[in-house]
Amino acid sequence: AETVNRPASKVQEMHVYEINELDRSSPAYLRLSQKEVNSLGDLVPFTNKVYSGDLQKRLGITAGLCVLIQHVPERNGDRYEAVYSFYFGEYGHLSVQGAYLTYEDTYLAVVGGSGLFAGAYGQVKLQQLVFPFKLFYTFYLQGIPDLPEELLGTPVPPSPEVEPTPAARAAEPHAILKNYTN
Amino acid sequence: AETVNRPASKVQEMHVYEINELDRSSPAYLRLSQKEVNSLGDLVPFTNKVYSGDLQKRLGITAGLCVLIQHVPERNGDRYEAVYSFYFGEYGHLSVQGAYLTYEDTYLAVVGGSGLFAGAYGQVKLQQLVFPFKLFYTFYLQGIPDLPEELLGTPVPPSPEVEPTPAARAAEPHAILKNYTN
Amino acid sequence: AETVNRPASKVQEMHVYEINELDRSSPAYLRLSQKEVNSLGDLVPFTNKVYSGDLQKRLGITAGLCVLIQHVPERNGDRYEAVYSFYFGEYGHLSVQGAYLTYEDTYLAVVGGSGLFAGAYGQVKLQQLVFPFKLFYTFYLQGIPDLPEELLGTPVPPSPEVEPTPAARAAEPHAILKNYTN
Repeated sequence: AETVNRPASKVQEMHVYEINELDRSSPAYLRLSQKEVNSLGDLVPFTNKVYSGDLQKRLGITAGLCVLIQHVPERNGDRYEAVYSFYFGEYGHLSVQGAYLTYEDTYLAVVGGSGLFAGAYGQVKLQQLVFPFKLFYTFYLQGIPDLPEELLGTPVPPSPEVEPTPAARAAEPHAILKNYTN
Repeated sequence: AETVNRPASKVQEMHVYEINELDRSSPAYLRLSQKEVNSLGDLVPFTNKVYSGDLQKRLGITAGLCVLIQHVPERNGDRYEAVYSFYFGEYGHLSVQGAYLTYEDTYLAVVGGSGLFAGAYGQVKLQQLVFPFKLFYTFYLQGIPDLPEELLGTPVPPSPEVEPTPAARAAEPHAILKNYTN
Repeated sequence: AETVNRPASKVQEMHVYEINELDRSSPAYLRLSQKEVNSLGDLVPFTNKVYSGDLQKRLGITAGLCVLIQHVPERNGDRYEAVYSFYFGEYGHLSVQGAYLTYEDTYLAVVGGSGLFAGAYGQVKLQQLVFPFKLFYTFYLQGIPDLPEELLGTPVPPSPEVEPTPAARAAEPHAILKNYTN
């Protein structure tokens, strides 16, 4: 077995936007509770598009499952337990697990990854901008090599109005990661 | 990117009780196998209350999903694959994954966390005391800062009869974590 | 709390085969999308047998959930998000999360484990040999003690024709892990 020293545990910040452009038939709200109000028993598989924090590049997709845990009427929202991954084309993926609350920001665990992200750990801040269509994430990553420049652009400040550049949305060659996940 | 040294990999033990007080409509047994006996295909979203090992404080909740893997008639029980998190109010959360057997103790993987628990790794022993209402967990945690005293109380020895203190059950101010998860 | 130094982050390769012998009622394809083509909303709990890479020993089982993310007609296949564990009898388990594509190899994240595998991290390469019945995995594991010889046998080169030895398939005493998971 070859020996590799784990990279220094420097914290690297990476920002991405997750946007639902209504072209992936997502989310699939499975009302398995058979109740009229969102209730434990409901499951929500989902997949959305992922753009770089500077909104200049299409990176890939999210993919995973939200488990409805409880409806929170006093906050007019819901608590979900979320298990999903972010895919970044040839760079690999990051997997996360934790709470998604429709009414406030949360931090999820980064539980691992592949490729450039193999051995990743840390956490990620989830900020919802437009429910459930536009989210902004700040990853605090450790255990991995230095991230490439194209993943480290200065983020556009999160707001409900942000949009990817037309080139990124159209996945033009200069506005995508190599072999971006689709 | 700021540089942070990973805390020494000291193993910290933390004990918690998970108790179903029948006030969260949990579990939701989804008999998607459409068979009379518990079978692969059944899914069980769940959420229960979490108390400190000394049963003096309400800490938060569990939230997640059990996937029925097989009915084990010779043990009069079931094997589940479990993916869930423990929420600890302002301290953050721990995520775990592994086997839940209704007929014997298991160890699950600690796959990460947030807040105080960001970067957590290790394992957790699950001991069932009253199926499926009362469980005792011993976390063996690494990769995180020293835990606060209120999470490190001497645990009440696990038995089917243990109960949280009335103050903890009532979530009185001195018997809760700050902003305990509910 | 006792102090334990994390093992050096040597990369250890471990190979296993996952084989569906049609005796575990797996997979359970839950067509919750209610569409004729595999679609987001479908869920697939599964559990298969696990053999050592040299096919001389029955090790245990896999157990978990695949979430259908998208049908990919141009590749005549599907993208799944997979969350599952590998069980290795008394040695414990490894949990993984990432993409399972029915039409090409992928790398998943190793997110943790128990027993011998407590604190494991890294990634695992998934190679499909016969859809969906026979898969070959190469784990690249860090964070754990040296693996025992019986998990490190020279793998049989992966091909659609490979089969476990008759002794391993029959779970004869010399061809199993101690207390192999079943």
